[in-house]
Amino acid sequence: MTLRFGVIGTGAIGREHMKRIENKLSGGKIVAVTDMNQEAAKQVVTQMKLEADVYPDDRSLVAADNVDAVLVTSWGPAHEANVLAAIEAGKYVFVEKPLATTAEGCMKIIKAEMNHGKRLVQVGFMRRYDKGYVQLKKAIDDHFIGEPLMVRCAHRNPEVGESYIDDMAIHDTLIHEIDVLHWLIDDEYESVSVSFPKKTKHALPHLRDPRVVTLETKGGVLITAEVFVNCKYGYDIQCEVIREEGIASLPEVDSISFRKRATLGTNILMDWKQRFIEAYDVELQHFIDSIKQSGEPSGPNAWDGYVAAITADAALKASNSGQKQFISLKEKPAFYSVKKENAHEAML
Amino acid sequence: MTLRFGVIGTGAIGREHMKRIENKLSGGKIVAVTDMNQEAAKQVVTQMKLEADVYPDDRSLVAADNVDAVLVTSWGPAHEANVLAAIEAGKYVFVEKPLATTAEGCMKIIKAEMNHGKRLVQVGFMRRYDKGYVQLKKAIDDHFIGEPLMVRCAHRNPEVGESYIDDMAIHDTLIHEIDVLHWLIDDEYESVSVSFPKKTKHALPHLRDPRVVTLETKGGVLITAEVFVNCKYGYDIQCEVIREEGIASLPEVDSISFRKRATLGTNILMDWKQRFIEAYDVELQHFIDSIKQSGEPSGPNAWDGYVAAITADAALKASNSGQKQFISLKEKPAFYSVKKENAHEAML
Amino acid sequence: MTLRFGVIGTGAIGREHMKRIENKLSGGKIVAVTDMNQEAAKQVVTQMKLEADVYPDDRSLVAADNVDAVLVTSWGPAHEANVLAAIEAGKYVFVEKPLATTAEGCMKIIKAEMNHGKRLVQVGFMRRYDKGYVQLKKAIDDHFIGEPLMVRCAHRNPEVGESYIDDMAIHDTLIHEIDVLHWLIDDEYESVSVSFPKKTKHALPHLRDPRVVTLETKGGVLITAEVFVNCKYGYDIQCEVIREEGIASLPEVDSISFRKRATLGTNILMDWKQRFIEAYDVELQHFIDSIKQSGEPSGPNAWDGYVAAITADAALKASNSGQKQFISLKEKPAFYSVKKENAHEAML
Amino acid sequence: MTLRFGVIGTGAIGREHMKRIENKLSGGKIVAVTDMNQEAAKQVVTQMKLEADVYPDDRSLVAADNVDAVLVTSWGPAHEANVLAAIEAGKYVFVEKPLATTAEGCMKIIKAEMNHGKRLVQVGFMRRYDKGYVQLKKAIDDHFIGEPLMVRCAHRNPEVGESYIDDMAIHDTLIHEIDVLHWLIDDEYESVSVSFPKKTKHALPHLRDPRVVTLETKGGVLITAEVFVNCKYGYDIQCEVIREEGIASLPEVDSISFRKRATLGTNILMDWKQRFIEAYDVELQHFIDSIKQSGEPSGPNAWDGYVAAITADAALKASNSGQKQFISLKEKPAFYSVKKENAHEAML
Ligand SMILES: NC(=O)c1ccc[n+]([C@@H]2O[C@H](COP(=O)([O-])OP(=O)(O)OC[C@H]3O[C@@H](n4cnc5c(N)ncnc54)[C@H](O)[C@@H]3O)[C@@H](O)[C@H]2O)c1
Ligand SMILES: NC(=O)c1ccc[n+]([C@@H]2O[C@H](COP(=O)([O-])OP(=O)(O)OC[C@H]3O[C@@H](n4cnc5c(N)ncnc54)[C@H](O)[C@@H]3O)[C@@H](O)[C@H]2O)c1
Ligand SMILES: NC(=O)c1ccc[n+]([C@@H]2O[C@H](COP(=O)([O-])OP(=O)(O)OC[C@H]3O[C@@H](n4cnc5c(N)ncnc54)[C@H](O)[C@@H]3O)[C@@H](O)[C@H]2O)c1
Ligand SMILES: NC(=O)c1ccc[n+]([C@@H]2O[C@H](COP(=O)([O-])OP(=O)(O)OC[C@H]3O[C@@H](n4cnc5c(N)ncnc54)[C@H](O)[C@@H]3O)[C@@H](O)[C@H]2O)c1
Repeated sequence: MTLRFGVIGTGAIGREHMKRIENKLSGGKIVAVTDMNQEAAKQVVTQMKLEADVYPDDRSLVAADNVDAVLVTSWGPAHEANVLAAIEAGKYVFVEKPLATTAEGCMKIIKAEMNHGKRLVQVGFMRRYDKGYVQLKKAIDDHFIGEPLMVRCAHRNPEVGESYIDDMAIHDTLIHEIDVLHWLIDDEYESVSVSFPKKTKHALPHLRDPRVVTLETKGGVLITAEVFVNCKYGYDIQCEVIREEGIASLPEVDSISFRKRATLGTNILMDWKQRFIEAYDVELQHFIDSIKQSGEPSGPNAWDGYVAAITADAALKASNSGQKQFISLKEKPAFYSVKKENAHEAML
Repeated sequence: MTLRFGVIGTGAIGREHMKRIENKLSGGKIVAVTDMNQEAAKQVVTQMKLEADVYPDDRSLVAADNVDAVLVTSWGPAHEANVLAAIEAGKYVFVEKPLATTAEGCMKIIKAEMNHGKRLVQVGFMRRYDKGYVQLKKAIDDHFIGEPLMVRCAHRNPEVGESYIDDMAIHDTLIHEIDVLHWLIDDEYESVSVSFPKKTKHALPHLRDPRVVTLETKGGVLITAEVFVNCKYGYDIQCEVIREEGIASLPEVDSISFRKRATLGTNILMDWKQRFIEAYDVELQHFIDSIKQSGEPSGPNAWDGYVAAITADAALKASNSGQKQFISLKEKPAFYSVKKENAHEAML
Repeated sequence: MTLRFGVIGTGAIGREHMKRIENKLSGGKIVAVTDMNQEAAKQVVTQMKLEADVYPDDRSLVAADNVDAVLVTSWGPAHEANVLAAIEAGKYVFVEKPLATTAEGCMKIIKAEMNHGKRLVQVGFMRRYDKGYVQLKKAIDDHFIGEPLMVRCAHRNPEVGESYIDDMAIHDTLIHEIDVLHWLIDDEYESVSVSFPKKTKHALPHLRDPRVVTLETKGGVLITAEVFVNCKYGYDIQCEVIREEGIASLPEVDSISFRKRATLGTNILMDWKQRFIEAYDVELQHFIDSIKQSGEPSGPNAWDGYVAAITADAALKASNSGQKQFISLKEKPAFYSVKKENAHEAML
Repeated sequence: MTLRFGVIGTGAIGREHMKRIENKLSGGKIVAVTDMNQEAAKQVVTQMKLEADVYPDDRSLVAADNVDAVLVTSWGPAHEANVLAAIEAGKYVFVEKPLATTAEGCMKIIKAEMNHGKRLVQVGFMRRYDKGYVQLKKAIDDHFIGEPLMVRCAHRNPEVGESYIDDMAIHDTLIHEIDVLHWLIDDEYESVSVSFPKKTKHALPHLRDPRVVTLETKGGVLITAEVFVNCKYGYDIQCEVIREEGIASLPEVDSISFRKRATLGTNILMDWKQRFIEAYDVELQHFIDSIKQSGEPSGPNAWDGYVAAITADAALKASNSGQKQFISLKEKPAFYSVKKENAHEAML
């Protein structure tokens, strides 16, 4: 059985995912494509030599008989409608983050999915499929070095352009930490506050950079997450979990080491696209495989999308008010508590 | 188009490769299977729920109309006949190492393939597809730190059992260094000698362990390769290329780091199967992709299989005689010199 | 010329420093000793075979003609009186931290020293003489990777006993970060706040552990300093300075590396006394040398002692109130601004 | 008691050692100085403001009543005569390597010292006092990871000048490995052979560089020592001991780490003088201390000087003949077998 995908949005990540499904992964196939920009959609089909139909709009693509699963890689604001359409049609849907741009939007999706009666939605939080995070998760779950007390992490980009507005530090950058950390330590956020050190001279006038986000969890874990998107030196993701008996940290990025000109060094990535390239592969393969094996996706779900939305909103408010914000989630429905095979278990 | 595989030999690595092709890679499919042990073959087909026919012998499998490519994962001594049968039938063949157990056997295959007129054979030297070696190769090809002068490497296993006889240190262990190093530095071996330090108390009586193999190349590069298969502490592959302006080394295996009980550490693998698990994936995907794109495989070829056989024979002689052995290859046919896209380029 | 020391306080660190001066350093000599516990003082003189007189009290020791410099290693609460006595007598004084237990006490010493007209006092903040910090300082002073924006540090002990009361986390542990960080980034503290993550199960009931102290400087640098004194795994001092073009971090403690039992590791110290053992040597040698060369000590001075006292008081208040505390120093007298040769320059 | 030194040879290392004794170490003092170049000797005394007499020649300096110990830092060929003169006068002598330029010369010194009846001589093999080697030695002596089987080491300099002739690769460079390795693994050399990889383009015409020296010990340990004195990238000393249960390696040189311009790096030294700067201090302090404590130096002795001479001669012969050379030492006199406190124990 092959999972037949319909793709909404053939932009940068849309094309990357399409290449994956066609050329690298097993068990999936692109059969339908649409984009607001119809020319773009047609061009992609031709260039990639796909046996896929180009649809004029989301609705008709979602409705197509041969589409088993919808891949939503349109712009963020379009996600909510795209996902709801897919659920209505009873189709599986893999949606890039964000699930929706508001917590209310996420809630609508949650209700639609629960009405449908089984899980259809997976959100593109690919870090849960990264080898390093998976090893870290395993080390925590094994209680290998005691209970977590603190987490220190950093999300650094060499630089960002004019179009990167201040909110994006939360909504596009921190969002990945927001998702991966509560999963990692299996806890819930309680509050968030944000501090701003001296601004780097490399940030454009409209951007506050760097910033340090402090999250406290219901279990008492104190998380400090640095967001620094003009750090110049590289794309660097760090995460260190301080526990009762020791500390576990993400590995540095795999690199040959060299001794040259008085330096012993390894390479740091400059391009964020390289960092999680394998995680994207595993994520989509896992989406395909769990649907085949159990009839439902078992990766990050709509509830995780909702948690991310609520938390990002609070972090944004904290960024702007200078005050600590409390994070109040609705109660988690049993529907999302039922234990599925975890993403990281799929990798072990 | 899907590349349809017929598999000869459903043992350990045969099954691993079959799972890859069916569940992880794109563009391949198992349609035919055989094994000397017919029950085993049938069982595999059932367990993996394959839509594949079980054939009574190699010949009939190779002859099957729907078989595009033969995957040879039988025992080493059977490889030569299996490969020759495939060539005769004009089928592509991916053969696990060794290509053949003798240099003469390899030569027969080379002649058959040249007669056929285009390349059909790829040998399972997966290290060329390992991310670390690929980075090392790239650093060398870029002349990033000058010309290679020396290479220091080590191939260590925690332990080996009774069935691991002395020759296997060369034929099963060193063989991977033999292949990957001449590719890495783009040079040819001239001589080999072997020294034996004090034997570890952990080696069984019939085995000399560790040993240090010294290879000299026509270009003057001096290679020392330690083979130590009862090193206890882990499965560890090291390679350091000493150049005119600096040194480049393989990365340590990707691992979270931890601070625990007075130690700052990372994990070393104990199981060799984990070490090149991604390289096996890339290797087979590359086999499928190059056939689709150019009608020929472009990974390690029959000539590489011959080089490995000749060099291993000399290393074995050197192990037993205590003398330096010269390595004399026949002249490399133009057929194998034509530049194909390199394996590592496929990964960049 | 030999600098002749009189020692007040022959406890743990007193004896260590006496051994240094007698057996390891150049140009110093112990000629006088006193301790509240007279028996202890006598015993030390006998055991160490010193040619030194035992005095009945601080006053008489300070007054002794052959005493050039007083080494104050009594208990913290006694320091103020000991130092004032030395200044009054016009003697040099090396005083272990704290200079005095209150900011007022420090101010009294500052006034006495300024009245005297030249610097006499050096405070035992030995980290400024640690090779790692010195390299870090140099990298910052060279503007090697841009201006500092953030500092992340940690001060971890494996465990503390019953007698370690909650205030000591600030007064005895954080105090070293307080001193070394403003020196390192050449900036002044503006505010301090303290957060408490979940308490480790290894801390005794009367102690809040770990805690995270946040310091903001007038220049806008944001410092997070973790104090964790029951971290179990080791004595570990970390410091990372995040700058506009990159990051510089303290080295891990010098250690052979080993590959053993599936781990690639280095050793972490368990005993804090080992960590700065060389820094203590350099510190005292520098005290002796600068007095000989320029007639004044040029290490951490009374003003630094005052800064530490004020900042520690604010951090304590912040620990107890849960509120951010502002740090208001009096204006720095020109007397302490005159540039002397810096401690770290002495090491380069 | 102060050990009063007379110095023969006020060249580069002579002056370094004099500064140490005067300004950094405890318990020593320079009271007499001579140099073939009398002007140089006088200048040093003036510049360093020493209270020391300048002598016209070695004999008169050695004979001076107030000289307790002679520091021989003249040119290598002068050492033998200088040391013999000191022994004859019953004075302690610290002699920079080599003890003598020939094995016969060393033997003469050994006989003179044995005739005298107690040990007087220490040879300047400072690596035994390096923290890294001391930790390595301790790890071996503790049988922490089994018995040594192989040692891999490297001695690399960024570059050497015209005056560095081919023999110096053995006599001035490898000599330190020769001394430190047999001490480290507590074994004796049996044979030596030398291989020459392709010559680096950075070596001058008269020099063969790099070279790989293979030493075999009586205990069966196989040592490969690379000497590469135009390696460009840094001064780098590596040593890895491969044992029955694991591997222990020298630490990399202490350095802050930095993240800058796509590199995570630490600094490698360029200047050899920095590498063992602390070892020189410890070495001379240990010389002073053992004489004070036990009446005899207990560091590297005349027998070690002889071992180095014999082994270096064989390595030179092997370099020139291309043949394996056997190393035959005379039997070690009980005089040198009596266990003294080891250098490295002094550091623990
Ligand atoms: N998980 C990750 O690491 C990651 C990385 C990059 C992007 N993303 C997410 O992926 C999404 C797409 O990002 P991108 O970088 O590919 O953007 P892009 O601008 O390159 O592509 C978006 C495409 O969607 C099309 N589109 C927009 N609205 C549409 C609609 N309503 N119907 C049909 N087509 C529509 C646009 O025409 C465009 O071609 C974003 O939500 C982004 O946050 C996630
Ligand atoms: N590249 C690598 O890292 C790597 C790793 C493991 C094995 N190998 C190679 O793979 C090959 C297989 O190894 P394995 O560990 O799977 O062995 P295995 O013994 O587990 O399996 C071999 C299978 O081949 C079958 N077989 C043998 N001769 C046959 C013949 N003439 N016709 C049909 N079936 C036959 C056997 O019945 C058995 O089922 C060997 O050549 C080995 O060197 C390579
Ligand atoms: N810089 C560092 O890293 C460091 C490390 C340890 C201790 N210290 C400081 O050194 C000081 C001493 O610490 P310690 O661990 O040696 O303590 P300790 O209790 O071992 O010794 C203190 C000694 O001082 C004597 N003493 C106390 N008051 C006296 C007085 N008024 N007159 C004479 N003698 C008096 C006591 O009898 C005792 O012998 C403390 O202020 C401590 O904070 C600094
Ligand atoms: N242990 C080490 O790492 C190390 C490092 C450097 C040098 N060394 C050794 O130290 C010795 C000196 O080296 P250097 O670099 O200081 O050389 P140098 O040329 O700088 O100094 C040698 C000095 O000795 C004087 N001299 C020579 N013969 C003399 C004699 N017979 N009587 C009196 N004076 C004499 C010379 O005039 C000169 O001033 C050499 O043997 C060298 O191998 C050891």
